[in-house]
Amino acid sequence: MSVLTLGTVAFDTIETPFGSSGKVVGGAASYIALAVSQFVRKQHLVSVIGEDFPQEFLTELSGRGTCLNGLSLVKGGKSFHWSGKYHQDMVQRDTLATDLNVLVGWEPKVCKSGNKADFVMLGNLDPEVQLAVLDQVNAPQVVVLDTMNFWMDIAMENLKKVISRVDVLTVNDEEARQLTGEYFLPKAARAIHKMGPKTVVIKKGEHGALMFQDNKVFFAPAFPLEEVIDPTGAGDTFAGGFIGYLASRQEATGEVTWEDMKQAVVVGSVMASFTCEAFGTSKLRSLSMVDVQQRWREYTKLTESELISWPKG
Amino acid sequence: MSVLTLGTVAFDTIETPFGSSGKVVGGAASYIALAVSQFVRKQHLVSVIGEDFPQEFLTELSGRGTCLNGLSLVKGGKSFHWSGKYHQDMVQRDTLATDLNVLVGWEPKVCKSGNKADFVMLGNLDPEVQLAVLDQVNAPQVVVLDTMNFWMDIAMENLKKVISRVDVLTVNDEEARQLTGEYFLPKAARAIHKMGPKTVVIKKGEHGALMFQDNKVFFAPAFPLEEVIDPTGAGDTFAGGFIGYLASRQEATGEVTWEDMKQAVVVGSVMASFTCEAFGTSKLRSLSMVDVQQRWREYTKLTESELISWPKG
Repeated sequence: MSVLTLGTVAFDTIETPFGSSGKVVGGAASYIALAVSQFVRKQHLVSVIGEDFPQEFLTELSGRGTCLNGLSLVKGGKSFHWSGKYHQDMVQRDTLATDLNVLVGWEPKVCKSGNKADFVMLGNLDPEVQLAVLDQVNAPQVVVLDTMNFWMDIAMENLKKVISRVDVLTVNDEEARQLTGEYFLPKAARAIHKMGPKTVVIKKGEHGALMFQDNKVFFAPAFPLEEVIDPTGAGDTFAGGFIGYLASRQEATGEVTWEDMKQAVVVGSVMASFTCEAFGTSKLRSLSMVDVQQRWREYTKLTESELISWPKG
Repeated sequence: MSVLTLGTVAFDTIETPFGSSGKVVGGAASYIALAVSQFVRKQHLVSVIGEDFPQEFLTELSGRGTCLNGLSLVKGGKSFHWSGKYHQDMVQRDTLATDLNVLVGWEPKVCKSGNKADFVMLGNLDPEVQLAVLDQVNAPQVVVLDTMNFWMDIAMENLKKVISRVDVLTVNDEEARQLTGEYFLPKAARAIHKMGPKTVVIKKGEHGALMFQDNKVFFAPAFPLEEVIDPTGAGDTFAGGFIGYLASRQEATGEVTWEDMKQAVVVGSVMASFTCEAFGTSKLRSLSMVDVQQRWREYTKLTESELISWPKG
């Protein structure tokens, strides 16, 4: 079972009310691939970097079973760089700089084994690039799309084309509203179903995630952290944990059930909580499956309750 | 097992982006008492009304086992009236009018059977009034306090006195932060534990509720409604369902366990969801235990998931 991930592999410079990251490795695909690697042994990365990108991070990804044949290196180019500053609430943020660099004019190339991938994770990027990757994959079983309001503002037509071709869409609550014009989330989810995706995951950051499929709905809270150092990449990590777990279930059982999807949301939430505990990818990189399992056990206690009896009736 | 509730019995006039309520019966104690009545057969109300208050609502409360001996009627007086307008998000709201009317100078009187109450629900009101009621109750087993930022702004000293004497504090996330100066909720909860309450319930509206006790934490989502008509009173209804369920468990088993507390948060969330579906108390008044049980069953499916296996390790 292999997973193919499209997304940025890049640098971030992050300021929060509590500290600064300096220039660190980030990018959607970095977080996704690290999270996926906890669940599957083989994955493909489709991205682009410049000559300034540290080999050491690529070596780590390779060591975690990531095929880098789809990672373009632009000679003399500089990697994508995003800089932002979080408000006091650690949710809202202002973008200070977006240096597209090697992203400009990049045409993604999926390698020969990548195009047989069973699971495709389209990380947040220009819908045109997402379409180009989708066109190069033969017959994926599950395609998950992550996107954001930015593309709704400037590339809605192409975005809708991508949306029509995916199985799962992950967006945040505001984005679900913007995409559909529906304020209440169950209605927004139904409107998204009509655009194509059978499954809709609405990410609400510290307030958890809602998943809708047909008439079913599932909710998973965010793990209540003692302290959030940096939420950058949490949504990407969620997506990586989500698709990685699904792929592992497909490998183990030959199918992906609603129960698997629910557990994938839980796993995504658990993985995302780690990312928030440090700047950049450092926490994800140091993580063992034992850490993940331990937090998962704590996590499940969060919502476990048992109705003993109703007092009347 | 009896429950004593302190709070306003009043009128509300509510505007939302989707409609207007006109002048309807509201007030914290109205919502609380209606919710409590689903779970216990006997309760006491401590509040004050003017001559303009409809007898029909009082008859309904009596019919639901509510002793009204603690309800003062001010001759020639007008009942408390609040008017507010919700923003597009149905969460933020502007107060248009607060007519204190009979609340001014009111001294609460607990009747002779009320002062033996086992469960006391101090609904949102001036901490001085809450203290006066607490002084009149002999030996309650569980005291729950609901309050809001308004009292933190103008009566923090008295509020802290009340807080030091209660078992459970319910506040929203912003209020927990204001009360403690701690941004992250697990830390805020610990700070509140030190002020007195063994249990802290942090209400997050559409984002659910978190409960902290010692080192334990429990999360219950809000029921994802198709449509929110009016969230006014949802927090009060939550509190009523919460304490009502606890009282019913105490009656059935002679104790209140952590499992009971968790289920009380679930019950409170279920009850609150009904209140949001109509203006004022109308939905709560028309509710049967069958309706409640049916939504509760739907609700539990929201977070139920089953880990089949971890793929590795």
